[in-house]
Amino acid sequence: MSLNFTHDPARRSWVDSANLPDADFPLQNLPFGVFRTSGNPTRRLGVAIGDRILDLRAAAAAGLLPEPVIPASQHPSLNALLALGAPAWSAVRARLSELLDAASPVAELRQRVETCLVPMRSATLLLPAHIGDYTDFYASIHHATNVGSMLRPENPLLPNYKWVPIGYHGRGSSIVASGAAIRRPHGQLKPADAPAPVFAPCKNLDYELEIGAFVGPGNALGERLPLSAAPQHLFGIVLLNDWSARDIQTWEYQPLGPFLSKNFASTISPWVVTLEALAPFRVPAMPRPASDPAPLPYLVDHYDATHGGLDLTLEVWLLTAKMRLAGDTPHRISRGKFTEMYWTLGQLLAHHASNGCNLSPGDLLGSGTVSGTARDTRGCLLEYTWRGTDPLRLPNGEERKFLADGDEVILRGYAERPGARRIGLGECRGLIMPAG
Amino acid sequence: MSLNFTHDPARRSWVDSANLPDADFPLQNLPFGVFRTSGNPTRRLGVAIGDRILDLRAAAAAGLLPEPVIPASQHPSLNALLALGAPAWSAVRARLSELLDAASPVAELRQRVETCLVPMRSATLLLPAHIGDYTDFYASIHHATNVGSMLRPENPLLPNYKWVPIGYHGRGSSIVASGAAIRRPHGQLKPADAPAPVFAPCKNLDYELEIGAFVGPGNALGERLPLSAAPQHLFGIVLLNDWSARDIQTWEYQPLGPFLSKNFASTISPWVVTLEALAPFRVPAMPRPASDPAPLPYLVDHYDATHGGLDLTLEVWLLTAKMRLAGDTPHRISRGKFTEMYWTLGQLLAHHASNGCNLSPGDLLGSGTVSGTARDTRGCLLEYTWRGTDPLRLPNGEERKFLADGDEVILRGYAERPGARRIGLGECRGLIMPAG
Repeated sequence: MSLNFTHDPARRSWVDSANLPDADFPLQNLPFGVFRTSGNPTRRLGVAIGDRILDLRAAAAAGLLPEPVIPASQHPSLNALLALGAPAWSAVRARLSELLDAASPVAELRQRVETCLVPMRSATLLLPAHIGDYTDFYASIHHATNVGSMLRPENPLLPNYKWVPIGYHGRGSSIVASGAAIRRPHGQLKPADAPAPVFAPCKNLDYELEIGAFVGPGNALGERLPLSAAPQHLFGIVLLNDWSARDIQTWEYQPLGPFLSKNFASTISPWVVTLEALAPFRVPAMPRPASDPAPLPYLVDHYDATHGGLDLTLEVWLLTAKMRLAGDTPHRISRGKFTEMYWTLGQLLAHHASNGCNLSPGDLLGSGTVSGTARDTRGCLLEYTWRGTDPLRLPNGEERKFLADGDEVILRGYAERPGARRIGLGECRGLIMPAG
Repeated sequence: MSLNFTHDPARRSWVDSANLPDADFPLQNLPFGVFRTSGNPTRRLGVAIGDRILDLRAAAAAGLLPEPVIPASQHPSLNALLALGAPAWSAVRARLSELLDAASPVAELRQRVETCLVPMRSATLLLPAHIGDYTDFYASIHHATNVGSMLRPENPLLPNYKWVPIGYHGRGSSIVASGAAIRRPHGQLKPADAPAPVFAPCKNLDYELEIGAFVGPGNALGERLPLSAAPQHLFGIVLLNDWSARDIQTWEYQPLGPFLSKNFASTISPWVVTLEALAPFRVPAMPRPASDPAPLPYLVDHYDATHGGLDLTLEVWLLTAKMRLAGDTPHRISRGKFTEMYWTLGQLLAHHASNGCNLSPGDLLGSGTVSGTARDTRGCLLEYTWRGTDPLRLPNGEERKFLADGDEVILRGYAERPGARRIGLGECRGLIMPAG
């Protein structure tokens, strides 16, 4: 994915809020989402620009979109656009980039675009796609090592980890958009010293900081997707909070993996930031220590090795009920880098389809918890508090081993480097409600 | 679910083929499916009667269906009917039972019904529903014990088994209807004595004999479904073959469970046999040995304990390429009973929703492999051949440790008892194609 005019950091938009230095959605981003407004309850596609949404349905009606994407722009989810593939994604992004550029459009054209803009604060942001299948991976070797250390101190990393991009199926139905309240789940809890489990509200509720990737055209059942084709099949990314009930998980997960400990809810950020917008932040895949095995050939590709990483900074913030009452701002718990993932998004995709499993437009691939080695780079409380043995201490004196009712978890992410325009992922928020 | 006139074994249909003693689809069954014909490629709902399909779209147009189900009868999948709930399911089944009864309809009405009948052999049977989420359980204690014995001889059954209806998420996209060819998957294989895995076609390809249950109305996210409500939310069942690549599974499944070893394909039978049709075969749940713990209260309900079991006989048949060439008939490998499951379908449903996970119309719950203790009641080759150590011997001299290319696996199921009309589940077929 080469750089083109849409990435030029010198370009500015005539939507002023897009030009603020810390804007998540400058002219160089143009992420896609789905929204509705109180004035118009139709679910429809939009593109974020500063603090505005460009309504794609309206833009199509105003004759502003490239012909091939007009039918897809009428759908209530991104799936039809995802199915069109990378050339169509590029075409619509290039057209919107021109239309919103402070330098380019003639006054009449700009007026037509203005009629399609909606203030983001007046919109409800919805799930961007119908997620047919959701798969969650485990691609951070630091996360796998930390969690493994708690369960199997003598043998933290299992023998398959450096060969297999470990993943498992998640639940599609309970994925919600940022802002949806998260009810603390009930489940079977069995402390190690108890003779029997009890059915009760989860005590050890946790977040997991992840990146989610939306699949484009995909493959037919029985066919594989080579790693070299990954850029044609990965549309864009969101922040993903894979809420986890650690006490339910400990008791249920053998031998078939996590189930009720995960499927009560997962939250994603509403704006899908395209991999094209992130092209200036593509970096080599994480270098493997010389002692690690080389990946098997189906997981090796020159472009992926040199450009498969993404230089993203990912943060977790917490706002407790007490902080909210006091008018405090959220507290940042952690800040980590997506460059430290052991497997690239392309490798996750190619592995998933390597047995002929059919991937479809709108499928969501979760990266797994993004963690580094230092404490303040760990992407979940299980790791940050080391299973609750070393609690999180907040500036107001509160402590957390795990999440309390009334806590709001806010994930943020962005890409920044000299010579490129900052690209933000927006926010992924979820507030914990008491068990029902 | 009480018995009514639709269960009366003395009733016969004017569709003669429905009255044969071994018919799967007599007047007392009336399973639902989706089909198309070469003459009319519209995907549409149908109900099986003998060797005919009653076209529900045509029946609605002919004024033959109860008013409340007419909109749902126009859909290309069962999902809208599943969403209507048990009273609507009963109403349409009762109406069709009357219309197809040899004794009841007047000539004019019968002629109208006849115009809606399609020969089943001229139809292509499709997936009966859009399966949003597919969950596979592990509810046979004999299967869990057998598989555990191979992996952990000292400790075959994990401590959670008798408390937790163990389940995990499966892949919805790769579920196919009976008759679809199954391509042998590639994957990472690592024999225990090899220093590294290789990427190659699966060698140890297996079937798994299961029952799949389709969910009806379901629950909203954050709400639970009490076990007592299960009959309102379980529409009907199909045969399910959860194809499994055992060598891929062994290497990949730690720590998050099976993934590529399962998601290359799962096959279901096309006719959804309603739990109402199976009411005469409801039996008490499997009696638990006195030494086993009682289930936690959310998994206990009087009706479920006394009627939660289903007296089904389930069979696996095999037709190899050599047998096909010789004109041989399929060979029956196993015949087991669904009454020996440790958890009822209702318990699987209630457990799934016990954390507030939202179940939706068209979701599919797999029972897990149905196995007994005797060799010829084991529902997969892994157990039948005890990991290949004791091969299956076929009458023509062929042997199988696992499936060979050209093998066709045929699942069959039925309910039979004195005083009730036999109810069949039909067939679930899949032919193994060489790796691509």
